[in-house]
Amino acid sequence: MPSRQIDPEIQVIRDLLASRPRPPELAERRRRLDALGGSYPLPGDVRVESTTAGGVPAEWTATPGADAARVLLFLHGGGYVSGSLASHRPMVAEAGRQAGLRTLALDYRLAPEHPFPAALEDAVAGYRHLLESGFAPGRIAIGGDSAGGGLTAATLLALRDRGLPLPGCAWLVSPWVDLESASASMESKAATDPMVQKPYLLEIAAMYRGAADARTPLVSPLHAELHGLPPLLVQVGSAETLLNEGVAFAGKAGAAEVAVTLEIWPDMIHVWHLFHPQLAAGRRALAKAGAFIREHLAG
Amino acid sequence: MPSRQIDPEIQVIRDLLASRPRPPELAERRRRLDALGGSYPLPGDVRVESTTAGGVPAEWTATPGADAARVLLFLHGGGYVSGSLASHRPMVAEAGRQAGLRTLALDYRLAPEHPFPAALEDAVAGYRHLLESGFAPGRIAIGGDSAGGGLTAATLLALRDRGLPLPGCAWLVSPWVDLESASASMESKAATDPMVQKPYLLEIAAMYRGAADARTPLVSPLHAELHGLPPLLVQVGSAETLLNEGVAFAGKAGAAEVAVTLEIWPDMIHVWHLFHPQLAAGRRALAKAGAFIREHLAG
Repeated sequence: MPSRQIDPEIQVIRDLLASRPRPPELAERRRRLDALGGSYPLPGDVRVESTTAGGVPAEWTATPGADAARVLLFLHGGGYVSGSLASHRPMVAEAGRQAGLRTLALDYRLAPEHPFPAALEDAVAGYRHLLESGFAPGRIAIGGDSAGGGLTAATLLALRDRGLPLPGCAWLVSPWVDLESASASMESKAATDPMVQKPYLLEIAAMYRGAADARTPLVSPLHAELHGLPPLLVQVGSAETLLNEGVAFAGKAGAAEVAVTLEIWPDMIHVWHLFHPQLAAGRRALAKAGAFIREHLAG
Repeated sequence: MPSRQIDPEIQVIRDLLASRPRPPELAERRRRLDALGGSYPLPGDVRVESTTAGGVPAEWTATPGADAARVLLFLHGGGYVSGSLASHRPMVAEAGRQAGLRTLALDYRLAPEHPFPAALEDAVAGYRHLLESGFAPGRIAIGGDSAGGGLTAATLLALRDRGLPLPGCAWLVSPWVDLESASASMESKAATDPMVQKPYLLEIAAMYRGAADARTPLVSPLHAELHGLPPLLVQVGSAETLLNEGVAFAGKAGAAEVAVTLEIWPDMIHVWHLFHPQLAAGRRALAKAGAFIREHLAG
């Protein structure tokens, strides 16, 4: 294979991340992920409002011109054990800007203090709160990254199985949908992924799933029956260990008659959108997601 | 799984196709595919001009406002043994309209009269002709359906390996990229696919590949090293036997650092775009392809 130039902006980020190994202490991991969100100043035109949604701490963001009748319910990543409103605020606000709507990000309960299905029940409660607040289901999108992408899929499945009206579409970034980490890219992309390696995933998977088997469909949506879901956009990076499970999930959903768009982004790493203030590919990916959501939410 | 309503427009087409088994005679197969193209009147604003491109019979189409500096080189489907300028003219003209450019469709040589690599050499000759005519490579898209989608992939690989400048993007509809037909959807989608079944594919694969092994990368691009290709749009239907090889090809290209967009369309069958005058999902798929090409060709 000829040598090729990697996107220089992501190369800087990959090098930086590789130089800073993940700390062993969970509290420090949480602090560091929150600090990433705080390291980017929020644009001055973003309005942030704290709230609760079905008993779950949450926050609204809005940018000028946001359609008040449409909403993106966002479920942050962080392996079900970290991440917060703070860690993902710049990414969520920018997604809302691109989609032209308000966002409601949920501060769902984290493991190991609150294992499965606590996060899922919080996500369903947040969605029900939107319905009860008067949002038409077809004007709600659900989105999330990493564990939040897996949680997005699990939430859709839970809504379907409980007979609740489904949202208009869903957006999954680098979704973690196989808590066994059995796919080939765990090895084939290990060398290029500076963030997410199989031993780490298995460690936090055990914290999250508690007594549940790793193949429980609501824990690992890759093992679920996926029929009846709304249109999905799945975005994954070519350099990440979660590449193959994202592709497999997209293929399985499509085979189950779900309208699927899968984007694979060269050189990109796990949830590259988080770095969008310094990464054009992150801004482009958020613009694509925004266009997808605009297209699929009812007028 | 709950029963669900299939897109009624595609249901009509699926029923019609299922009622008309493929004739055993190759001449009759060719006649029938050509008749499909002729069954839809070409819109009155489409200009068609016969030409040759690198010695290969071809034709231009243009619709009002088409950018004369950009072109879609189109490689029709038909299993490498059938299909023609006539069979695909309405689909190609509409793709050009949606992309806002002219199209050059190639009447490449067919098997079994002209086995591999005749079609590939014709496709490369057609592309070289565009370069020699002054088209910047970044303003050329290559597209094709079914065997033409596989041929599109093979053409990109041949251009790359010969050191020729690559086009700006490529568009693959229901691509046939595995001439062994080894993927699971050959069985799992056999009941819903009224057009393409494994015994037929193996029969025409033998006609096309001649003495070449079915795993030859330029015969079955699923087995090629895919690095260095331009951005790809792959569109496949959820109801077709070629679903899984399209997904696998997209995943493999993405893993090789190619920018990939994969769309899986619920209920759709092999190259549903051919039926676009009577099928809204076909028109929407062509609009998506047009938008992709507009986005990826240099300004």
